[in-house]
Amino acid sequence: MAVIVQKYGGTSVSNPEKIKAVAERVLGYSRQGHDMVVVLSAMSGETDRLISLANSMQDQPDTREMDVLISTGEQVTISLFAMAVKAAGFDAISFLGDQVKIHTSSLHTKARIEAIDTEKIKSHLKQGKIVVVAGFQGVDETGDITTLGRGGSDTTAVALAAALKADQCEIFTDVEGVYTTDPNICSSARKIERISYDEMLELASLGAKVLDIRSVGLAKRYKVPLHVRSTFVATEGTWVVEEDKEMESMLVSGVTYNKNEARLTISRVPDKPGIASKIFMPISDAGIVIDMIIQNTRAGDLTDMTFTVPRTDYKKALEILRKVAVDIGAEDVSSADNIAKVSIVGVGMRNHSGIASTMFHVLANEGINIMMISTSEIKVSCVIEEKYTELAVRALHDAFALDNKDIP
Amino acid sequence: MAVIVQKYGGTSVSNPEKIKAVAERVLGYSRQGHDMVVVLSAMSGETDRLISLANSMQDQPDTREMDVLISTGEQVTISLFAMAVKAAGFDAISFLGDQVKIHTSSLHTKARIEAIDTEKIKSHLKQGKIVVVAGFQGVDETGDITTLGRGGSDTTAVALAAALKADQCEIFTDVEGVYTTDPNICSSARKIERISYDEMLELASLGAKVLDIRSVGLAKRYKVPLHVRSTFVATEGTWVVEEDKEMESMLVSGVTYNKNEARLTISRVPDKPGIASKIFMPISDAGIVIDMIIQNTRAGDLTDMTFTVPRTDYKKALEILRKVAVDIGAEDVSSADNIAKVSIVGVGMRNHSGIASTMFHVLANEGINIMMISTSEIKVSCVIEEKYTELAVRALHDAFALDNKDIP
Repeated sequence: MAVIVQKYGGTSVSNPEKIKAVAERVLGYSRQGHDMVVVLSAMSGETDRLISLANSMQDQPDTREMDVLISTGEQVTISLFAMAVKAAGFDAISFLGDQVKIHTSSLHTKARIEAIDTEKIKSHLKQGKIVVVAGFQGVDETGDITTLGRGGSDTTAVALAAALKADQCEIFTDVEGVYTTDPNICSSARKIERISYDEMLELASLGAKVLDIRSVGLAKRYKVPLHVRSTFVATEGTWVVEEDKEMESMLVSGVTYNKNEARLTISRVPDKPGIASKIFMPISDAGIVIDMIIQNTRAGDLTDMTFTVPRTDYKKALEILRKVAVDIGAEDVSSADNIAKVSIVGVGMRNHSGIASTMFHVLANEGINIMMISTSEIKVSCVIEEKYTELAVRALHDAFALDNKDIP
Repeated sequence: MAVIVQKYGGTSVSNPEKIKAVAERVLGYSRQGHDMVVVLSAMSGETDRLISLANSMQDQPDTREMDVLISTGEQVTISLFAMAVKAAGFDAISFLGDQVKIHTSSLHTKARIEAIDTEKIKSHLKQGKIVVVAGFQGVDETGDITTLGRGGSDTTAVALAAALKADQCEIFTDVEGVYTTDPNICSSARKIERISYDEMLELASLGAKVLDIRSVGLAKRYKVPLHVRSTFVATEGTWVVEEDKEMESMLVSGVTYNKNEARLTISRVPDKPGIASKIFMPISDAGIVIDMIIQNTRAGDLTDMTFTVPRTDYKKALEILRKVAVDIGAEDVSSADNIAKVSIVGVGMRNHSGIASTMFHVLANEGINIMMISTSEIKVSCVIEEKYTELAVRALHDAFALDNKDIP
């Protein structure tokens, strides 16, 4: 008899038949006596449809009204789901974010969950009902509807699990779990059975899309056992849990890559205090998020600065950097948008030395030049030419024996 | 500087372009300094789309969940409308039924408005905003979303106008107002400039679809001046207001008809006390609404009973009546679904005699046989053969000189 929170994404509830299938799956748990709380996204495509309606009304749609609009997507799926459960002879009740209530900040379209009232949910669970909650939405202190941003339903589910002290939180999606790397480019990619919160955070921040990064942070903070699995098959997925000895014995847990960045370099900058701020402030002011930064000092009090930005902001960043170069007397600006970031992640790195150098060696062996390196306690990232991405991923996956779960 | 409540129906807001056009129209009033409260329906077709989704989930969709589902239609239009106003450089804010709040009974899909909080609306009007309110929806005392049934947005508008003590309530629709009769069958039909609440109530109950009957009752009770007019042309429509001398001087205000009924007759029933109840109880129990009832007494303690029901319930009613006939020893059951009810309405009838007999005379002159007659203080209805409907309407419109507004 556990309390289980399950979240189903848009592709899992994209039409009435799929909603019925999800209801059947949830009923399987109810029949075993579990208390079920189900969090649903909007039907896939619906949020985009609503956003495009908004864009046809106003160039920069008002964010308060945007939230009133896009929160309808989840409102539709939760009511249809409750009907499907009732049609199957079981009882269910749906709740919107402002009915639960899920209290959030007032930052429309990007609100943060601040608190959740669980009394209503608990009382309906006690009455034997499946409680269905709209993902992605909440209410601020003035009673306005808010939304949590893309991927927000994952966060709703984890926050509910934390507030209810649920035994587990299951995120149902269209893949079977978290993989050692992208199965589309590496046929020996393997589904990971257990991964630590910190590793999952790194993977999510490096581009793995299977879980929203905020939900992982929340799960870590409240120690909510997270289970990422497929809606369409019954097999176990990946458990995201607290770090343990077994995980530490693995050198590397996963290999990931990101092709959505571009590199910019400003060369032979007179190296004076405050120079980094002069370079990066105008770029930040333009709303561009900088990822990696590397500084090389040259002879003669000159320095080179290389950094990466999202590829969509590449042209804007380059334009700004060229102006800055003139202002601060730099000699040259160079750039490339045909780059990729390849990363290895694993808590084992904390206790094993030489993992980074193994990575560099593997890439060198394949004739791949490394342009930038960035490390954290549990990951190493290398920027390389984009065309080598797949080769690099496969070589690293192989070198760290990720295809074989028995050999750490 | 008036407070004006305006309601726009589904065909007026059926796509982004029409929503923008409505916003422009409302802005015209705002620029004149009026305080504007706008009530919107869902885009035309949207409520039906949602209901059909519900029907695909559950044979008899749960009504609480149905309200969660179908209330999204208005939520979409109010947010898009507020964006359109803001795009035009004016300020607006949208409110859902549970944000206003519009308190209702808990009878899901058929709730009644019980009270409206106006503080929030007044405060935003004071800040110079156009306040946009979702029609058709409210909230019950447990915080559940409710809806008011078909045509409910008219009721929302009138209830808001009453609560705000608004100077007028305008119902914008796809026709130019209330007509002396259906312009599609009588080319000399004329738009009525002013009509009394009671006449409008009779017309609405007799089948005129331009206004929801509950909204007219509410307008009468709170003396809200109602203005029915077209979204697509600028001309004045029809004012529904308190009765005055001029209206009383008119013999008849309008001619209406209804082809959606069927007639049933049970003949030679032994006339004992309680016989009517034995006939009509089983029909009511089946959820069938009976409209007109006529009883003729025959010689020998026998009686004939004739009544009408909605045509959609005709077969079911006939089946029940045949069983009843056997039980109570009636001699015969006859019926017809090719009938129509033609009615004349006017407060002038209170003070003028002979109007009913003029009606009978006009129909007789055209060779039309009258099967049933029903009268109230301000209307006379005759059931005739359906094929004579148009002829009867035109003859009555002509006889009471409804094409000429100068001759009472």
